[in-house]
Amino acid sequence: MTGYNKATPAVVEALRGICGKGNVLVDVEKIEAYSHDETDAAEYGSMPEVVVLPTSSEQVAGIVKLANKEHIPITPRGAGSGLSGGAIPHLGGIVLSLEKMNKLLELDKENMVAVVEAGIVTNDLANTVQAEGLFFAGYPMSLQTCVIGGNIAENAGGGKAVKYGVTGRYIIGLELVTPEGEVAQLGGKLSKDVSGYDLKSLIIGSEGTLGIVTKAIIKLIGYPSSKSDLLALFKTPKEAIDVVPVILTRGMTPTSIEFMDQKSCIASCKYLNESLPYENCGAMLLIELDGSNAAQIEMDLIETGKLCKEHGALEVYVAEDKNNIERIWNVRRNIAEAWKVFSPVQSLEDIVVPISKIPAIIPELERMEKQYNVQIPCYGHAGDGNLHATLVKDPAMSMEDWKKNETACLRELYRVTSNMGGKISGEHGIGIKRREFLREVIDPVELKMMRAVKQALDPNNIMNPGKIFV
Amino acid sequence: MTGYNKATPAVVEALRGICGKGNVLVDVEKIEAYSHDETDAAEYGSMPEVVVLPTSSEQVAGIVKLANKEHIPITPRGAGSGLSGGAIPHLGGIVLSLEKMNKLLELDKENMVAVVEAGIVTNDLANTVQAEGLFFAGYPMSLQTCVIGGNIAENAGGGKAVKYGVTGRYIIGLELVTPEGEVAQLGGKLSKDVSGYDLKSLIIGSEGTLGIVTKAIIKLIGYPSSKSDLLALFKTPKEAIDVVPVILTRGMTPTSIEFMDQKSCIASCKYLNESLPYENCGAMLLIELDGSNAAQIEMDLIETGKLCKEHGALEVYVAEDKNNIERIWNVRRNIAEAWKVFSPVQSLEDIVVPISKIPAIIPELERMEKQYNVQIPCYGHAGDGNLHATLVKDPAMSMEDWKKNETACLRELYRVTSNMGGKISGEHGIGIKRREFLREVIDPVELKMMRAVKQALDPNNIMNPGKIFV
Repeated sequence: MTGYNKATPAVVEALRGICGKGNVLVDVEKIEAYSHDETDAAEYGSMPEVVVLPTSSEQVAGIVKLANKEHIPITPRGAGSGLSGGAIPHLGGIVLSLEKMNKLLELDKENMVAVVEAGIVTNDLANTVQAEGLFFAGYPMSLQTCVIGGNIAENAGGGKAVKYGVTGRYIIGLELVTPEGEVAQLGGKLSKDVSGYDLKSLIIGSEGTLGIVTKAIIKLIGYPSSKSDLLALFKTPKEAIDVVPVILTRGMTPTSIEFMDQKSCIASCKYLNESLPYENCGAMLLIELDGSNAAQIEMDLIETGKLCKEHGALEVYVAEDKNNIERIWNVRRNIAEAWKVFSPVQSLEDIVVPISKIPAIIPELERMEKQYNVQIPCYGHAGDGNLHATLVKDPAMSMEDWKKNETACLRELYRVTSNMGGKISGEHGIGIKRREFLREVIDPVELKMMRAVKQALDPNNIMNPGKIFV
Repeated sequence: MTGYNKATPAVVEALRGICGKGNVLVDVEKIEAYSHDETDAAEYGSMPEVVVLPTSSEQVAGIVKLANKEHIPITPRGAGSGLSGGAIPHLGGIVLSLEKMNKLLELDKENMVAVVEAGIVTNDLANTVQAEGLFFAGYPMSLQTCVIGGNIAENAGGGKAVKYGVTGRYIIGLELVTPEGEVAQLGGKLSKDVSGYDLKSLIIGSEGTLGIVTKAIIKLIGYPSSKSDLLALFKTPKEAIDVVPVILTRGMTPTSIEFMDQKSCIASCKYLNESLPYENCGAMLLIELDGSNAAQIEMDLIETGKLCKEHGALEVYVAEDKNNIERIWNVRRNIAEAWKVFSPVQSLEDIVVPISKIPAIIPELERMEKQYNVQIPCYGHAGDGNLHATLVKDPAMSMEDWKKNETACLRELYRVTSNMGGKISGEHGIGIKRREFLREVIDPVELKMMRAVKQALDPNNIMNPGKIFV
């Protein structure tokens, strides 16, 4: 990680020549915002030397060519809403923000495709296409703030992945500026393509380490005009999880199957002054169904509720009107915020396990809570096996003890996850936050292959160096 | 492509040591079957020096290590049902057939996952899981004969891809023997995973050039218990294709939207002595809907038929009983066979274009028919933009003239496809057949990246060398 050069005044001047004076920031007060993302700034924050705001792919290519020639690390950045430190310039150098490349370039209704610049806010895209009866089904929970480029970098998942899959399923083409500053067009307005390697899928989820995505071609689908939700309360996490394959094998595909443990639910309800009947319930499933036919959804919702009841649900509440749907989802969405009131120091995790292993994870978390003196509420996407177990610091604990315990507890969590056939990140990425741990749990041959690919495509290691890999 | 060593008697002996005497074939009459696939054997066939039939991943790893050390080309082979020459040992060397690694290792109903060896016949897998109410939605047209390993190597598509996507969507884990003979475990029983690069997707569709897939973890879904079909006749291809986005944006997702031009339909009907009313019709759409709810499918089928009528369909025929569904699909499936009666010498193509460009392709094909004195029936997966335009030799033409015209016509077809934003293969792959052409139409930066990846993962270029790339 050593041996990089600094962004000297001459380099800054050259950057100004590429993207215009107003698009190159060096003042501390202006570049401070680019020193962190949604991870803890105190722990992971790091100042860039210079921030560039290019307005075209040609400018991006020019900047990358310069960085490659001068051997200066370059960190691509979307909305800065990441949860693993991927957009943080932890070696200094250049931050390249896509914020000015935020246009919807084309809405091709005939092919049901949108062509966008990478900096477009995901919600802006979603709203625009919805007005035309179309749907962008990659739908992260941070929809309001995140941008498509970041969704691609992390292969973002979110609340609708049980039915619709994750971001990558809808990305059918990419424009990529390679680490050597060339511009590649990958894929196209095509549903399928085996004309050589699927480099597009290699880039998706590579956290900006293999190049900078400047444009994306996005597959849209018909907008599902109806939706309904169901909240099912179970005595234990095991009973809740056991019903998931029962529902899925009946030919129904819920949009979401969200899981909350008792701890998560109580905290969020108290925070929102909400009155869900959580007292006797050890776990909740929040199930959403959507589609183009309200009658069909109604039928599926009744069937789903029946299956939950038959398989041990204590209670099933149905929410078909918008207000009640919103009320329940608010509980799910505010879990993290609620716990921040208790203690702002947290480690939001993102493990993913085979669905059937979720019940086995819960007692392990309880064991770790005691062993490391932390609280670990657990919630997330049950239909995907993706759980946001969150380590929460006891407010009375010293920061020094917390750091020690956090590290030990994370190591333990990742080991347990890995032993269950799981992985340490389902949708947030490795970034800086998990890179020390990844190498402890990943198949060594797989890691070797990843390193070989990185070395082949970024021979000078200037593209977001030190992310994913140590 | 030069500088490879031969499989000497000493090498053959070492191979016998690895996988047992009975699993190493050298007799000409025994290895002849491994010299070709479904492409024209006269044109593309090539004899291997030795064929090995390993029975375990360890044996595969041993064979590859030996080939890598001795610098002998190794060609992985599934069912040999490929359509681009990917399994043909065109440089001799070792053919490694997965035919004895054909077991279903695990059917994990809780996680709706099957773990299989790569040589399992796709249909065997499909039938076994169907008995449990589960569905393998990767569903190539060659289902009866092809194997999962081959489906993965080509990222096979097929008749259900409009709704269900292609093979890759259902492959959530792979065991891969790398070109250096190491064994990597990629992915797992997981719905999502961003713990490092998505090497699994890089391997899918790489035509056996980056390693040998020995096992796969396959995501299953609930078996759709009902289906219905609809045949819509249109005056012109344009009218037929224009209705596709209309249907898709109404929130309905047909399983298949198959397209046949008049030429294809007439040939197949005559071949089958079938009486579809094709006289006034320039193009047909065959649309299938499936799901768990017969009433819903009925409603969607009526709506789909109505949309076809409103958008210019001359006639719409509905087939809800199994016999009539089978009758119509038979016409679609037998197009290639029907044309073989007319002339066995053909080039089955596999172009993929943006859906909206299909009508523009048809007059180009008519132009090429005249220019190169060939017939080009065109049919395929309209819902994907994937068309099996097929160059058919006039029986009266000399083979010499055919070769010349075929090459020139293919070059023209690929150029036209590329200019429309299309690619030269949607589901059959590049293999040997299209490698000379790929470099003429692919983005040069993309090609450079592909070569860099190949070089990084197969530094000695022993793994299916000369496929995809020249």
